[in-house]
Amino acid sequence: MNTGRLAGVIAPVVTPFKSDLAPDPGRYLGHCKWLLAQGCAGLAVFGTNSEANSMSADERMVLLEQLVQGGVPADKLMPGTGMCALTDTVRLTRHAVSLGCAGVLMLPPFYYKGVTDEGLYRSFAEVIERVGDNRMRVYLYHIPPVSQVGISLALIERLLARYPGIVAGIKDSSGDWNNTQALLDAFAKSGFDVFAGSEAFLLQTMRGGGVGCITASGNVNPAAIDRLYRGWRSDDAERMQAEISATRSVLHQYPMVAALKATIAHFASDPSWATVRPPLVELTPAQSGTLIAELSSRRFDMPGVDA
Amino acid sequence: MNTGRLAGVIAPVVTPFKSDLAPDPGRYLGHCKWLLAQGCAGLAVFGTNSEANSMSADERMVLLEQLVQGGVPADKLMPGTGMCALTDTVRLTRHAVSLGCAGVLMLPPFYYKGVTDEGLYRSFAEVIERVGDNRMRVYLYHIPPVSQVGISLALIERLLARYPGIVAGIKDSSGDWNNTQALLDAFAKSGFDVFAGSEAFLLQTMRGGGVGCITASGNVNPAAIDRLYRGWRSDDAERMQAEISATRSVLHQYPMVAALKATIAHFASDPSWATVRPPLVELTPAQSGTLIAELSSRRFDMPGVDA
Repeated sequence: MNTGRLAGVIAPVVTPFKSDLAPDPGRYLGHCKWLLAQGCAGLAVFGTNSEANSMSADERMVLLEQLVQGGVPADKLMPGTGMCALTDTVRLTRHAVSLGCAGVLMLPPFYYKGVTDEGLYRSFAEVIERVGDNRMRVYLYHIPPVSQVGISLALIERLLARYPGIVAGIKDSSGDWNNTQALLDAFAKSGFDVFAGSEAFLLQTMRGGGVGCITASGNVNPAAIDRLYRGWRSDDAERMQAEISATRSVLHQYPMVAALKATIAHFASDPSWATVRPPLVELTPAQSGTLIAELSSRRFDMPGVDA
Repeated sequence: MNTGRLAGVIAPVVTPFKSDLAPDPGRYLGHCKWLLAQGCAGLAVFGTNSEANSMSADERMVLLEQLVQGGVPADKLMPGTGMCALTDTVRLTRHAVSLGCAGVLMLPPFYYKGVTDEGLYRSFAEVIERVGDNRMRVYLYHIPPVSQVGISLALIERLLARYPGIVAGIKDSSGDWNNTQALLDAFAKSGFDVFAGSEAFLLQTMRGGGVGCITASGNVNPAAIDRLYRGWRSDDAERMQAEISATRSVLHQYPMVAALKATIAHFASDPSWATVRPPLVELTPAQSGTLIAELSSRRFDMPGVDA
């Protein structure tokens, strides 16, 4: 039963691949456990930064089962289940719910562009109806810079009216604070959980009534982000926000997934972590060297060091 | 063996769904056979206008097998096999080649935006290497208005150098004649088959050394488009081009997939054809009425009438 709701810092977990590009369950489980030990409240496996959309539905389901079997509590998991095809989204969502996951993070179908709110409403509604399980908690995934298909306030309002309790929250990765503010103003008081899409907006989100952030850099800097989450009301909050935002800015100078993996590869002394699936490309040695030098000069909770 | 190459008018076949949104193999087979009888040289099943990306890999494979078992010659088929996930694209491509399909129409992985040519090269190369079958003919699918991830001339050059014969051509759905012209100038003489992405550019494409068009409106107006394909050197070519472009313009006032299905539903007297999968939405009765009235006033080879 998922009566509880996730809140805090959630990492969209990067997915390690072996040299043949197959997912690497051992490294994956290890990284997930490290993240939880560092203070992550949950794991948004199969997000954008997980290269989830470079994996098949079957590959995701196998990995999810391996995590749960390996001891990651299902009530810490918020797997991404939104795919282009209605039938795939239903299958992944049903599977996640059956494993007892805390929720699912659901992209809208993202191939067709310029679709209407009516079409997106039907997409989400059809998935919810087909899965038909009251334990399901759907977190909407709004990331128009990548998906190019966004989730409007009007759509959320309509979904909440029809599926209260099931439609549980949103990850706002628009990068647009005005949108996050509008979401908080419109829905936070009614129990709809707004997660910032990056820690850059964590303090503002908490002040506005949100519940945390789901952020790529949570993969490598979870403890510091969690300190701000826990201490957002403290006098030190602005300084903590500035510090984690500065670390994020270092990572953001590079393609994010490759930068995260290069960081883990370095600090965990495990070069194979750098592998990405096409169409992504790993950092060059020069990029990697500069990134690591910049990160090392910062106060930084390095993966693999203090696990 | 696929020693022959498809040339002419190819329809990206719309996929009929039942009221429960499951694919409808009976109607599908009937439409495919009608298209071939009307002069289509081939069928690009599982394209953008087929709602392919609203179907799972398994759903596509079942439909493809049903077509072949139902008597559609595999050497007329160019199924879309490019999905976001490398493993899905490999699986679909291998399946299509094993059935003897004339070729596959391959989208680049389209979730991640701003990816590099290096990343896209690796994506296509990895699929080709994994499938590892000399019968494979890969047609690149360039449709940046929808996929948001395009295929550059430099990428094609690199793929052709490494995989001559396997990389067989392109569907250019950029909507940008300058791009089609550049493709023709760069590659047509070397045996790389350039298909216009719509019949609006069919005459120009043929004059520039291309081999035909793969066009949505081929679903409802194939015979007239085929007449231009066969008669593009005739004195009547400009008039035929103007006529089919005008019919296309009527359809293009509406969301294309819904318009195509409404057209078939009307002229085939089969209302269930209008069903689309979310996130697409069928035309309203008012839209449908206007569309049919406009089409009916034109010289028009109506589906289901002269099959």
